[in-house]
Amino acid sequence: MIKTEKIERIEKPLGGIPEPTLRRLPKYIELLTRLKATNMKFVSSNYVAEKLNLDPIQVRKDLAISGTIGKPKLGFDLDDLLAALNHTLNWDNLHDAFLIGVGSLGSALLGYKNFSSYGLNIVAGFDSDQRKVGKVVNGIKVLPVSKLENMIKRMKINIAILTVPSEDAQEIAEEMVEAGILAIWNFAPTHLKLPKDVIVENAQLTQSLGVLTHKLAEKTKKEKMIIHNN
Amino acid sequence: MIKTEKIERIEKPLGGIPEPTLRRLPKYIELLTRLKATNMKFVSSNYVAEKLNLDPIQVRKDLAISGTIGKPKLGFDLDDLLAALNHTLNWDNLHDAFLIGVGSLGSALLGYKNFSSYGLNIVAGFDSDQRKVGKVVNGIKVLPVSKLENMIKRMKINIAILTVPSEDAQEIAEEMVEAGILAIWNFAPTHLKLPKDVIVENAQLTQSLGVLTHKLAEKTKKEKMIIHNN
Repeated sequence: MIKTEKIERIEKPLGGIPEPTLRRLPKYIELLTRLKATNMKFVSSNYVAEKLNLDPIQVRKDLAISGTIGKPKLGFDLDDLLAALNHTLNWDNLHDAFLIGVGSLGSALLGYKNFSSYGLNIVAGFDSDQRKVGKVVNGIKVLPVSKLENMIKRMKINIAILTVPSEDAQEIAEEMVEAGILAIWNFAPTHLKLPKDVIVENAQLTQSLGVLTHKLAEKTKKEKMIIHNN
Repeated sequence: MIKTEKIERIEKPLGGIPEPTLRRLPKYIELLTRLKATNMKFVSSNYVAEKLNLDPIQVRKDLAISGTIGKPKLGFDLDDLLAALNHTLNWDNLHDAFLIGVGSLGSALLGYKNFSSYGLNIVAGFDSDQRKVGKVVNGIKVLPVSKLENMIKRMKINIAILTVPSEDAQEIAEEMVEAGILAIWNFAPTHLKLPKDVIVENAQLTQSLGVLTHKLAEKTKKEKMIIHNN
């Protein structure tokens, strides 16, 4: 048994996929899922590259990570490739998750039906506001945040979606880590200081919006200047 | 007049802020807003760096971009720095925006009260589903998507938030650009092919989630192996 494990280790180095590659995989999955719905059976990396406006060499390298091998002239078996990519992102398993902070963004996320395609199953919401506790928001029950630690332990929950106000984020995150949470999807626009082995992924909604509004200001300024100088 | 414009141009090169810096600015704004609420008047870049777990040299460089100059021993005037950073991201102006696609994520975003702090004012939602049209979702009216082009022109809207299914995203984006939209905040997990002068910022929710679930799988695998090998 130990031997097999070791061989597997050599074939697929742990944590070996660079993050920029990882971040492109959902785009491939999204495209392939749509192609599958049109009954396409095979797909080439060139075709994928063209559809997504990406460099064909990069796409070939990215898809190779899935371990699927394309057939000459036909390309990849679409079903196999899709399954392998979903497996790489761990989206072929459904993970139970808690959502903490049932405000406007939190409620919204509770109602987002597509998370299950991405391996995420939100089983409960938590809030400190007694008026929210006991309610069912978008089909999911809201529990008091005082029960959070206990419930994480009892239900062996690994993933938390954090949508509390920034000033509460650090404290709640620490509590959850102590109770056994392994990964936090952080929507609070604040930095979490946690032990290195805890996985923290920042949703970066405000960062994304900041880039957009800044670029828009620059663009408008530039255009005004052109009109001005003519 | 022309002279002044030119001097301004030299002082602040257009589009000169690197994207990684831009993406850190919302974190500074969030922290400074919280510090302001505690009545703090001055703040040093070292303090900011420590709070956000960032390199002090990087923070000093980032904050210098705002054009604010710190006072020796006291640091930055907090109000001035905050105003300057908000101005850099164009968050001190309120921009009217349309949201297209009032599904579960779209509805959620319509109800997100905090967008106004980030310069965004969603004035209407649009959907092709007749059952949604005419309704008020989270305080915002839903209009038929057939009126979208006309309304963009009439109301001179620059920003669109795109939350339609992936298969509809490209077509609607093209329509909107033709009608005069300058910037699209894209929540559809698909690539938009648009003219280069259109600002497209991808919200990358699924990319972010993919990184999280992949890392979790790797972590769990690693831990199982350690148990196995002992």
